Amino acid sequence: MKRIVQKFGGTSVASVDRIRAVGKRIKAEVDSGNEVAVTVSAMAGETNRLVGYVDEVSSLYDACEYDVVVSTGEQVTSGLLALVLQQMGVNARSWLGWQVAISTDDAYGKARIMKINAELLDDRMKSGQVPVIAGFQGISPDNRVTTLGRGGTDTSAVALAAALGADRCDIYTDVDGVYTADPRIVSDARKLEKITYEEMLEMASVGTKVLQTRAVEMAMKHSQKVQVLSSFSDGSGTLVVDEDEIVEKELVSGIAYSSDEAKVTLVKVLDKPGVAAAIFGPLAEANINVDMIVQNVSEDGKATDLTFTVAQNDLERTVAKIEERHQDLGYGTLVHDSKVAKISVIGVGMRSHAGVAQTMFQTLAEKGINIQVISTSEIKVSVLIEEQYTELAVRALHSAYALGTL
Amino acid sequence: MKRIVQKFGGTSVASVDRIRAVGKRIKAEVDSGNEVAVTVSAMAGETNRLVGYVDEVSSLYDACEYDVVVSTGEQVTSGLLALVLQQMGVNARSWLGWQVAISTDDAYGKARIMKINAELLDDRMKSGQVPVIAGFQGISPDNRVTTLGRGGTDTSAVALAAALGADRCDIYTDVDGVYTADPRIVSDARKLEKITYEEMLEMASVGTKVLQTRAVEMAMKHSQKVQVLSSFSDGSGTLVVDEDEIVEKELVSGIAYSSDEAKVTLVKVLDKPGVAAAIFGPLAEANINVDMIVQNVSEDGKATDLTFTVAQNDLERTVAKIEERHQDLGYGTLVHDSKVAKISVIGVGMRSHAGVAQTMFQTLAEKGINIQVISTSEIKVSVLIEEQYTELAVRALHSAYALGTL
Repeated sequence: MKRIVQKFGGTSVASVDRIRAVGKRIKAEVDSGNEVAVTVSAMAGETNRLVGYVDEVSSLYDACEYDVVVSTGEQVTSGLLALVLQQMGVNARSWLGWQVAISTDDAYGKARIMKINAELLDDRMKSGQVPVIAGFQGISPDNRVTTLGRGGTDTSAVALAAALGADRCDIYTDVDGVYTADPRIVSDARKLEKITYEEMLEMASVGTKVLQTRAVEMAMKHSQKVQVLSSFSDGSGTLVVDEDEIVEKELVSGIAYSSDEAKVTLVKVLDKPGVAAAIFGPLAEANINVDMIVQNVSEDGKATDLTFTVAQNDLERTVAKIEERHQDLGYGTLVHDSKVAKISVIGVGMRSHAGVAQTMFQTLAEKGINIQVISTSEIKVSVLIEEQYTELAVRALHSAYALGTL
Repeated sequence: MKRIVQKFGGTSVASVDRIRAVGKRIKAEVDSGNEVAVTVSAMAGETNRLVGYVDEVSSLYDACEYDVVVSTGEQVTSGLLALVLQQMGVNARSWLGWQVAISTDDAYGKARIMKINAELLDDRMKSGQVPVIAGFQGISPDNRVTTLGRGGTDTSAVALAAALGADRCDIYTDVDGVYTADPRIVSDARKLEKITYEEMLEMASVGTKVLQTRAVEMAMKHSQKVQVLSSFSDGSGTLVVDEDEIVEKELVSGIAYSSDEAKVTLVKVLDKPGVAAAIFGPLAEANINVDMIVQNVSEDGKATDLTFTVAQNDLERTVAKIEERHQDLGYGTLVHDSKVAKISVIGVGMRSHAGVAQTMFQTLAEKGINIQVISTSEIKVSVLIEEQYTELAVRALHSAYALGTL
């Protein structure tokens, strides 16, 4: 007997018929003798509808009340799924965040789970009942409803799995796993059987939106085994695990890309101490996340060029923030470009192998693709290129590292 | 300074624009120096949408989970109205049933309020905050969500008003008060300034769906002053009060009608003890509510005709229940008719005045309308007539009792 937490996302519960299909999966797991707890998202489109109401009231809203409104979507799904399971003869009941309780901090709209009281759920599971927990929601120290931020049901699932001591946390979504590259671009992309938490984190941070970043961090912290798989097809998915559970580490696990980048270059910035802080301080205050940064060594010791990237929807605010300090910062001109893409090569294996970055640079050079900015971590090399070369670059790299199906 | 509980029904909060209009009414009450608490229904159509999901799953559902799903409509409205009020500069926050807490019994789907913990709300109101309480919902002894039955937000409002010691409970709806007759039928129908709880109860029970019956019972029990008024127009509505608050009691307060009746006649029923029990026992067990009953004295002491009415949507089940016991009951034939209407004359004044019923019978006779069944209470006379004469009867009676505008 295993204990399993299953999570079903919005497209998996988009209609009563889809909820019935989900019910069959749960029943199959129960019938095979396992203890199962389930957490669910709102029906596809519901959260957007509810957010739409809030936006219609005001763009500057009280996050407490936003959470009251938006959390109802998951409540509806949990009730409906419990009903569906009961109809199939499965002993089931719904649980809301406050009933469990899933205690969070008071950062309404993006709360963090502090503690899950697993006792009640644990008892019910031992007695053969399937708890169907509304995802995405918790209860604040003030006894109010909180939500965990978009995609937060992933985090609910992993946190519940950790609290319940689950053997596995199955994240059912509309893709059947994590691939070596986007299968829509690379025809011979291969589904990974296993991937490490660290790689998954890097993937999530460069736009492969299979799992919420925070959910991966939490899984890593608790060494909670997570499986990503499809609710629309059968077969196993991709296991996200500790590095030491992967015997044959691959040099490179995958190629990711993100077109949600914008490049900003300050030409002829004074090359003196404190300039970087003067530029990036105000951006941090404005909650603008700066990703890649590159500063050339100045030739004359007086002025240099500084380039960095931000998310495309932060570009306008970024430019405004910097231009209002033009005098203080003392740069020549500001140039920006949204037609860029970030291409990343990810793999824990590269830690112990030199030459991964070199292969990347050479492959892109052979295709005549110019590298604008480079950034690296222990297990990732990212480059910024012209957006129009995205697909060409991903395909070339996928082939260069021999990632395709054999 | 007065303390007022305001309730806004589904059509009053049907859109964000309508919620803004409601916000203005609340702000006006606050600005005039009063302490205000508000309770709200789901946006018009929401509850039906949610009930539709549940029905799609199963016609035989677990009422606990039904309540989890259906209660979300009021939660959404409470959050949105709190946001609207905040935007208008009114200090406001939403409250869910479990947060207050509004404790109910465990009759899911039609729960009764047992106790309201008014302390938290009371504190907030004294400090100038407007609580916006999700109507229709409570919390069961098992810590689960309950709902109070369709129209239950009226009951939430009256119960909150009683618990908070409110001077008045204002029920905002889409009509501007209680009329002497349906204004769509009687052009000179007059809005009543005041009406007693008892009269309001009789009105509610014969189809004038201005207030939920249970809400009126609760108001009567607590002598809670209630006002029914429109959120779509200005001006005062109708006050529902204790009888002794009405100085000039009118003989008749209003004429009500209901077309939701069906008549069943058992011809040649054996006239012996226990027959009525044998007929109505099985109907009661099947939860079929029998309204009017009339049994003629038998001429020969052997057989009589028995006529009674049930709600139209219970007719089919009623006939089935009785026909399956044809042998035991030993009646001749069963005749039924749905083309009937119940016309009622209501007024506390008739207690001390004879002749009210006589006026009714004579008026109908003059119009050539045959009376099929009669039933009376202390403050009501009801008759069953052919449905096609409904409007004629209501107009004639309204005029006979001189109820029109002067």
